[in-house]
Amino acid sequence: MLETFLNPRSIAVIGASQDVTKIRGRMLRILIDSGYDGVLLPVNPSHATVQGLAAYPSISALPQRADMALIATPAEAVADVLRECASAGIMNAVVYTAGAAHGTEAERQLVSRMAAVARETGMRVLGPNCEGFFNVRDNVAGNFSPSIHLAAPQHRQGGSQRPISVVSQSGAVGFGLFTQLKQQGLICRHVVTTGNEADLDCLDFVEHIVREGGSGPILMFVEGLKDGARFARIAQLAADHEVPLVFCKVGNSVAGARAAASHTAHLTGAMTAYEATFKRYGVIKAEDSDQALTATKALACLPPARGNRVTVLSTSGGTGVWLADVCSAMGLEFPVPDEALHARLAQAIPAIGGIANPVDMSASVIEGHGEVLAEALRLMTEADYMDAVVIAMSLAAKDRVQQMQPALEPFLASTSLPVIIHSQAYATADNLDALARMGGMALGMRDTAFALKTLCDYGAFRRRWDAQRTSRDQATAVPPISKESCREMLAQGRQAELLRAYGIALPPETVVSSREDAMRAAHAMGYPVALKIVSAQVQHKTDVGAVALDVKNDQELASAYDRVLANVARAVPDAGIQGMQIQKMMPPGLEMVVGITRDPDFGHLLMVGLGGVFVELLRDVAFSPVPVSAEQAQELIRSLKGYPLLEGLRGGQPGDVQALAALAQGLSRLAADHPDVIEEIDLNPVLVYESGVCAVDYLLIPRRDGSSVSADSTAVRIESVSVQAMTETGRAESSPGPAKSASVQAPLSRLEGCSHHRSG
Amino acid sequence: MLETFLNPRSIAVIGASQDVTKIRGRMLRILIDSGYDGVLLPVNPSHATVQGLAAYPSISALPQRADMALIATPAEAVADVLRECASAGIMNAVVYTAGAAHGTEAERQLVSRMAAVARETGMRVLGPNCEGFFNVRDNVAGNFSPSIHLAAPQHRQGGSQRPISVVSQSGAVGFGLFTQLKQQGLICRHVVTTGNEADLDCLDFVEHIVREGGSGPILMFVEGLKDGARFARIAQLAADHEVPLVFCKVGNSVAGARAAASHTAHLTGAMTAYEATFKRYGVIKAEDSDQALTATKALACLPPARGNRVTVLSTSGGTGVWLADVCSAMGLEFPVPDEALHARLAQAIPAIGGIANPVDMSASVIEGHGEVLAEALRLMTEADYMDAVVIAMSLAAKDRVQQMQPALEPFLASTSLPVIIHSQAYATADNLDALARMGGMALGMRDTAFALKTLCDYGAFRRRWDAQRTSRDQATAVPPISKESCREMLAQGRQAELLRAYGIALPPETVVSSREDAMRAAHAMGYPVALKIVSAQVQHKTDVGAVALDVKNDQELASAYDRVLANVARAVPDAGIQGMQIQKMMPPGLEMVVGITRDPDFGHLLMVGLGGVFVELLRDVAFSPVPVSAEQAQELIRSLKGYPLLEGLRGGQPGDVQALAALAQGLSRLAADHPDVIEEIDLNPVLVYESGVCAVDYLLIPRRDGSSVSADSTAVRIESVSVQAMTETGRAESSPGPAKSASVQAPLSRLEGCSHHRSG
Repeated sequence: MLETFLNPRSIAVIGASQDVTKIRGRMLRILIDSGYDGVLLPVNPSHATVQGLAAYPSISALPQRADMALIATPAEAVADVLRECASAGIMNAVVYTAGAAHGTEAERQLVSRMAAVARETGMRVLGPNCEGFFNVRDNVAGNFSPSIHLAAPQHRQGGSQRPISVVSQSGAVGFGLFTQLKQQGLICRHVVTTGNEADLDCLDFVEHIVREGGSGPILMFVEGLKDGARFARIAQLAADHEVPLVFCKVGNSVAGARAAASHTAHLTGAMTAYEATFKRYGVIKAEDSDQALTATKALACLPPARGNRVTVLSTSGGTGVWLADVCSAMGLEFPVPDEALHARLAQAIPAIGGIANPVDMSASVIEGHGEVLAEALRLMTEADYMDAVVIAMSLAAKDRVQQMQPALEPFLASTSLPVIIHSQAYATADNLDALARMGGMALGMRDTAFALKTLCDYGAFRRRWDAQRTSRDQATAVPPISKESCREMLAQGRQAELLRAYGIALPPETVVSSREDAMRAAHAMGYPVALKIVSAQVQHKTDVGAVALDVKNDQELASAYDRVLANVARAVPDAGIQGMQIQKMMPPGLEMVVGITRDPDFGHLLMVGLGGVFVELLRDVAFSPVPVSAEQAQELIRSLKGYPLLEGLRGGQPGDVQALAALAQGLSRLAADHPDVIEEIDLNPVLVYESGVCAVDYLLIPRRDGSSVSADSTAVRIESVSVQAMTETGRAESSPGPAKSASVQAPLSRLEGCSHHRSG
Repeated sequence: MLETFLNPRSIAVIGASQDVTKIRGRMLRILIDSGYDGVLLPVNPSHATVQGLAAYPSISALPQRADMALIATPAEAVADVLRECASAGIMNAVVYTAGAAHGTEAERQLVSRMAAVARETGMRVLGPNCEGFFNVRDNVAGNFSPSIHLAAPQHRQGGSQRPISVVSQSGAVGFGLFTQLKQQGLICRHVVTTGNEADLDCLDFVEHIVREGGSGPILMFVEGLKDGARFARIAQLAADHEVPLVFCKVGNSVAGARAAASHTAHLTGAMTAYEATFKRYGVIKAEDSDQALTATKALACLPPARGNRVTVLSTSGGTGVWLADVCSAMGLEFPVPDEALHARLAQAIPAIGGIANPVDMSASVIEGHGEVLAEALRLMTEADYMDAVVIAMSLAAKDRVQQMQPALEPFLASTSLPVIIHSQAYATADNLDALARMGGMALGMRDTAFALKTLCDYGAFRRRWDAQRTSRDQATAVPPISKESCREMLAQGRQAELLRAYGIALPPETVVSSREDAMRAAHAMGYPVALKIVSAQVQHKTDVGAVALDVKNDQELASAYDRVLANVARAVPDAGIQGMQIQKMMPPGLEMVVGITRDPDFGHLLMVGLGGVFVELLRDVAFSPVPVSAEQAQELIRSLKGYPLLEGLRGGQPGDVQALAALAQGLSRLAADHPDVIEEIDLNPVLVYESGVCAVDYLLIPRRDGSSVSADSTAVRIESVSVQAMTETGRAESSPGPAKSASVQAPLSRLEGCSHHRSG
């Protein structure tokens, strides 16, 4: 835990200077000015006092063991200073030093030397190249950011705001966000900027803040994480503790990634893995600082919405329509009052417009002390047809809020719904102030919509999470296959057996050793079938005629059987024949791809997508961390743009989504059970029928760096094997090889099965 | 022209009241308070003076003819008052009266009675249900909006700002937007709110402001337009006059449309037609009020960008990365300085990061008076590798801008590039003020990106427009077919001939009357062919066997010819046979749809799209007003999500985009030449080959309400005819019928031609 780190009772300020225009002067000044109530111990070799405080010539000369050291010495000296601190029993340090230019070798060296000291001494170190931290609650300004004293809050947010923390890899961004939260009168608890993260990283602080208890939303700014799987665990922890995470992940564009790489030591993580993790654990993704601040503020001050239904009460018809458009584009719904409710509303609001939502109240509603508005809100709350409310009225006139306080305040205090006021002109300071005092919130148009979306999304996540928690708490299933068996099966080429053990439907197949058995097998599975020689010596089966496709009846089977044997005997005379594989040719169906990929940081992800152009051109695929429940798999499938094809677009055959979800669940379970063994799995295509599914082609790649593999992993690499079953359209046998390129080459032809030719 | 309307030298205030809390008091008060310098003529039957001015008992008792009347009398009285005004020679009026509740019959009656007076007397009337207008330049506050006096500008924008006008159908939104522009210190010229538009509508005012000359951007808020084609003409006028239009089109969501319909008399227009018009004429679309204000401000204060290349200079690495992400997502580019430039920059900026854009300057760059920043800007401008600049630095510290004025001001004054400053914390008022005075602009993150995008988009439009203007000025081509011939061809079922006259490639076909001629024709066009009886009496050709598909050789042709004749003789013994149509069966190709639709307000639109799921599921179609140039057609085709298929996705055959564009151009020309004759055309599919294209199926629907059709249009409706050519996969003959439902049923099978089966 980082309790002492964030709340040190004594701080040694190394190299503290008199000159407050320099970092080494400012880092002391800020502590003094902010009224830090612990012991400040300036260290300065040449002055007996610094900024009015007694100073000490060296770390070893300090009169007491300090809880923390603040360090801004030149890069070359940092490691030595840290060791001196450790020797003096100082076990926490902040290193502001930026260390040469960003992205240079000198910077990398600084980071690795600092990491070594931390490792060797057990010291916890923040930085380098950070702006430090600010424990707002306990008033410890361990930073040199001028911003914390610049921005006076314009007002104080009333109501029951949960305290916000900001954890940022960038110092300027972290304190910039904090400043803006503060200017809006919001209560913050911690601001931590972690810079190049030689030792402590942003996840350490997020975990600490979550475990500390009582935290409101945590606003994170991240260029890249070293350990995505750990992020997933902490996101899960936050979800369990009901701490919303608002996540700004930057460095996703080409230009951004280039700049981020030169700026920090992180590689920019794969956004796919981040987003899959966000979705799973209800992390709110913010694209820009406006979204970040709005989402954080909304989550701190307002309750999550119980559903997606928004009602807009507007004094202006035009503003209402506009808000409805902007909110609808974010997926929010606008239920219309029924006639009975509208009749009751019309009694309260004489100039009300037609039955609609947004409700056009006309400007008269805000006359007097807002009695009319209050009555309208009461009626609508009673009718229980909304999950969130926007009141659109102008706050440009002075004292507007104060005048309406008798109506607004009791409603805001008693409602369990999120309420946002949108002013079509800029609100005056006195209105914002009065509104904030009663726990209300006024936002611009885009922010209103994004705040609502955030509260609806987070509310939906909480309902899902709490429901799933119950099932999660039940004992997890025992893997059907042990780790050893799994390894063995892969080594022996028994991929099909492994997949089937996890419930994945493959085409019926069997190996026979006589024409009579072949016929019996074909009858059992039903024609048409494919024949394929089973022989270790026959490599390119299609080339030598060791395969026969689309065999339709006994007569064809008999001749195909003989022909394949003859072809093999001619082409590879010495081949040992283990038998003949008989495989059912599957009828066409809707083609999907289902797979497992492994992100080096985040671990295994389940992927589902529609075949053809959907994967190839539109990247219409969805990812999730493994394992998934059947319900989560269905959700993933439903999130595809091409999903209507599975529903039976335009009268076509619907696909068996339940069976598909079960297959995806099984596959995700396989990866989750054997993370060390599986690198990648590619089921492509999975044919989806009206009833049932079948993975007609699969590819498994074992992990190269799995612990079962010797150090010289290239030497013992288990060859990946792809067994391709044939559909009736006839497809060539696939050969072993990497799956990556193949997995996006899904044929379009099967989509035909559910398209409809124009008929006259 | 509306010169007198917007700048009346004498105003009669009908029913002017002493009570300024009521509209009838406020409308006079605002004119007095704002220092209107014309003659004010209050009309009040019972007071000799009102608000200190001499009042007159009736309109007829006025001592002089007034230029304008302001009217807020009850709805029942409005028409009579207007007639009284007209009798007294008052030819301009503003009617504030809201008239019962929105969307009611009473409101509709008010509008139609006002329209009648305007029509009969020639009076120009604004309203009802509007908040009036404000001619800011000439100081005529013909409105009752409290907002215009509420918001004092916080500062005044320096530099060369072009004056902004706001034209809005909603009074509250119009004056709300104006208030916010004013609060930002921007110079406005006109604010007009048009309400229910009984007579004057928002396009009248936009046209006037454009023709007046010297206008900066016009910000429009529109729920619906009565005449889309007129909007297109005015958008073209604005483009020619270099007046940017920022367009907020609301009522596009289900909820928004519902509310808009109840609020105004307009039907919510089809967004498709709006967006096609926006694209063609460079109209900037704003989704919300934040975008609207940002785009307007940027276009008023900054030059359009010469290209898409943005450079971010940031004092914080993190902020730079974030900005790059947000701007990249909007399609902006970040060219990286070459090594030579970086070396020069590094000399100016000692702590510069690695070679990248955003350029990480570190905080030191803003020390002193910004000399380092100025030098960096000079070097980068010289290197000419950017079209727009963002400087990211905190403006949270007081006097930051003033301190850097020696560096910033000369650069801002001399640069021809748009420059935006982004502060990662809220900027202080003094900084905003100082920046505005030197013509600079500070924006939040999202607004920074949207402003840049707006300036880049508008710059790109201007280049395109100016280039096209040259060719537009050349004489337009003479239609290959006269209006009469066009009508005749449709009436006689000669659709193919008409399409061919416009250069649209159809499958070879001919009508023969003997087996020998059939064979000769088949040889000429090449097998396979289709045979089809030509007979007015045979309605459902496929049903009676009057069609033969996929005829491969002479032998098959001979028997098919006889079979078809025999089938017809048996099924319809009395049928008169005009001959046998021989049509070439076309080989498969990439399937596109190309069509013409007619929006009742906007007129004809060209539509292009890829067949199959692209149309059916993804609505991947693009529209443009007709006619289009070959270049515009190509642009339209390239804008499709599925465009990579035409480029030969993953090694597939590329399609002949040039031929496709030529076909689209020809089709658009046909619609543009004969708008009264054509209702809808549907070429579906158009097969695209590596070389050439072919419209194998077409449907033409003549206009029902074309002027050639008698008043009883249902009686003489020309039957639409679809002639379906067969592709080799065999498609059923289509029968006459509406195209709408058919046009989205494009088969997927042809996509197969350019997909690639996984091969082993």
